[in-house]
Amino acid sequence: MKDFSKRVKDIEVSLIRYMPVLASKVPDTVSLGQGLPSFELPEEIKEKLIEALRTIKDINKYSLEPGLPILKEEVAKYLEKTKNVKINPEKEICITKGAIGGLFCTISSLIEKGDEVILLTPAYEPHIEQVKFAEGKPIFVPLIEKLGWRPNFDAIDSSITKKTKAIIICDPSNPTGGVFEKEDLKKIADLANKFDLFIITDETYDFLTYDEKEHFSLLSFPEVRDRLIACFSFSKKYAMTGFRVGYVVSPENIMNQILKVHDESTICAPTISQYAALFALTSPQNFVQKFKEEFQKRRDLICQRLDQLKDLFEYQKSKGAYYIFPKLKLPIKSKDFSLKLLYKAKVITIPGIAFGPSGEGHIRLSFAGKEKDINEAFNRIEEFWINLKKTFKL
Amino acid sequence: MKDFSKRVKDIEVSLIRYMPVLASKVPDTVSLGQGLPSFELPEEIKEKLIEALRTIKDINKYSLEPGLPILKEEVAKYLEKTKNVKINPEKEICITKGAIGGLFCTISSLIEKGDEVILLTPAYEPHIEQVKFAEGKPIFVPLIEKLGWRPNFDAIDSSITKKTKAIIICDPSNPTGGVFEKEDLKKIADLANKFDLFIITDETYDFLTYDEKEHFSLLSFPEVRDRLIACFSFSKKYAMTGFRVGYVVSPENIMNQILKVHDESTICAPTISQYAALFALTSPQNFVQKFKEEFQKRRDLICQRLDQLKDLFEYQKSKGAYYIFPKLKLPIKSKDFSLKLLYKAKVITIPGIAFGPSGEGHIRLSFAGKEKDINEAFNRIEEFWINLKKTFKL
Repeated sequence: MKDFSKRVKDIEVSLIRYMPVLASKVPDTVSLGQGLPSFELPEEIKEKLIEALRTIKDINKYSLEPGLPILKEEVAKYLEKTKNVKINPEKEICITKGAIGGLFCTISSLIEKGDEVILLTPAYEPHIEQVKFAEGKPIFVPLIEKLGWRPNFDAIDSSITKKTKAIIICDPSNPTGGVFEKEDLKKIADLANKFDLFIITDETYDFLTYDEKEHFSLLSFPEVRDRLIACFSFSKKYAMTGFRVGYVVSPENIMNQILKVHDESTICAPTISQYAALFALTSPQNFVQKFKEEFQKRRDLICQRLDQLKDLFEYQKSKGAYYIFPKLKLPIKSKDFSLKLLYKAKVITIPGIAFGPSGEGHIRLSFAGKEKDINEAFNRIEEFWINLKKTFKL
Repeated sequence: MKDFSKRVKDIEVSLIRYMPVLASKVPDTVSLGQGLPSFELPEEIKEKLIEALRTIKDINKYSLEPGLPILKEEVAKYLEKTKNVKINPEKEICITKGAIGGLFCTISSLIEKGDEVILLTPAYEPHIEQVKFAEGKPIFVPLIEKLGWRPNFDAIDSSITKKTKAIIICDPSNPTGGVFEKEDLKKIADLANKFDLFIITDETYDFLTYDEKEHFSLLSFPEVRDRLIACFSFSKKYAMTGFRVGYVVSPENIMNQILKVHDESTICAPTISQYAALFALTSPQNFVQKFKEEFQKRRDLICQRLDQLKDLFEYQKSKGAYYIFPKLKLPIKSKDFSLKLLYKAKVITIPGIAFGPSGEGHIRLSFAGKEKDINEAFNRIEEFWINLKKTFKL
């Protein structure tokens, strides 16, 4: 039989998705794995969607390929209001199947064999695999953990070559929970201009920061507008992960390329999900505030529970997103540790190695779940850890 | 500024999607363009979906990456019943974002630079672009128009080289409306075995044949099961084009590759759409029969209207799907003709050139719309044609 393509052999099934598949065979697990907000779809969006199913005749049909014009207009308004940037909804926005769809189309449009792409690690795993899928070479530049995951500009600078084509920024960060400082974003902008790099941002968690920390978007920096492709999601902000809807914002010339891949891979984002997104954007945003408050409580809780396991974990407090990325104080591979937690403690976590080499020796914990589940998971981890210490006389 | 990837520069925005975008600026058009069934979502599916939105807690959340297990089981049952084949729902099925998603992941997994892929033309445009996206070389082998678009096996045989890796079959065919004979499928199976080729099928319209013609799936041919990847859709059968849900069936070893691309590009098919598909599959299929009867009437109508324009069109009667692919009796490029129809007659059609070189001199007409729209479109085309003849004294 003939062989598969090199590109597909080079990439791996994401451990973020593989762990839940493994876990689906283990009864009675608790998850700190996939980033799945516990919330149901806000009642207001749900009722509008039900009404729409009954009244909008074309809700079952394809939308125009780049998305429903009315949704794109609302997105442009939102961007102007929150990021102080004027975007042309017709030419500079495409509604995608989640941020991941926007990232996939962008990376496939820009990156090819021979190109190097800077990834600040730990990096969101699909960014790495998408670069490899496009036959580009991921160049891993570790973030500085002890500074709360800030970029190391000396290291970035010295990793840039003639082949460097783009830098990918995930901010707030999945998996670290880090949030970039405005001055760091400014330095990234300068660097991109100096070395003629595309900047690709994943701003899935743009709404979610803690302790009143502000999130800045590179969209607000006019000096990089012509080289910036920014990807956003409705998934986390509105508890809509399963709807698969997000958007990408880029200059028209880049968008014309992205739209080709979007078309050949997807046709259009699901129309019903686009309506859900429209209702989410145009509703009073009370539920977003409520979600944020809940996530803040959960962040505080998980830190508190991690503090009780100081001989096992060391961590940087999350400033945004709903992940924390503790370092293991054991000399064990992260994948082995996650598998042990799954099979021995029945707790789902994601091995740090999924997020690039500097993720090794860590695990990613999502605190998007309910407080009682976080507590249950930590009760189990504590018990597991006590038994492990006994067994190995640690 | 650095350049885009070669792969994206090589592909084109599908004319199937570009024509509606152009048309959205022209007031008062009638569409024979995109294949969009006029039907609303069947009432039964709609009501079950509304109930599910109210009662299924996780309907807003990601499903497992390969799809909802219960939906995959129903798909396996359906395949056993209709195509007499036993498929392992856990390992051999992935729920995708429409057939297009399955095709995209499959072609990216199998095809790479240097590979040749046989496309029987006129071929569905995204198949061509997906092969080019994967940096493969489409090898166009024209179907025999005067035999009702049957394959030309001498031509296929002589186009196979050492580099040929796969053959793509769209049956029932978009854009021609052709349906393969069982003996032709058998020959394709033999050929794939003889030359060690993957077979990729797009069976989006498997339910839709006319005049009681039977559709056979290559899934029913055990001798090619290990080299066959079959892509299906819920879009047309259940009036669910906007839901973006379909499935791909393949042997486990190939599925393991497809799942990687599915994950990195999509995460999972929209959960709400997967539920809609589940309700569609498990409801009494009366509406499918009703749709078929309607499409049969529309097929008969469009043929009748084409018959009244014998000095402009010559055509093969569609045996399946809801497209017809008439040949123009004018020496005009298909794109010019479609643009004239759009701007002069306000009728949307798809230029035949979109479907490969042998599509030139034809246009694709969809008869998925209502009879009154088909009549209105043809009234306009007739008027346009009368005026054109006057102007040019034809």
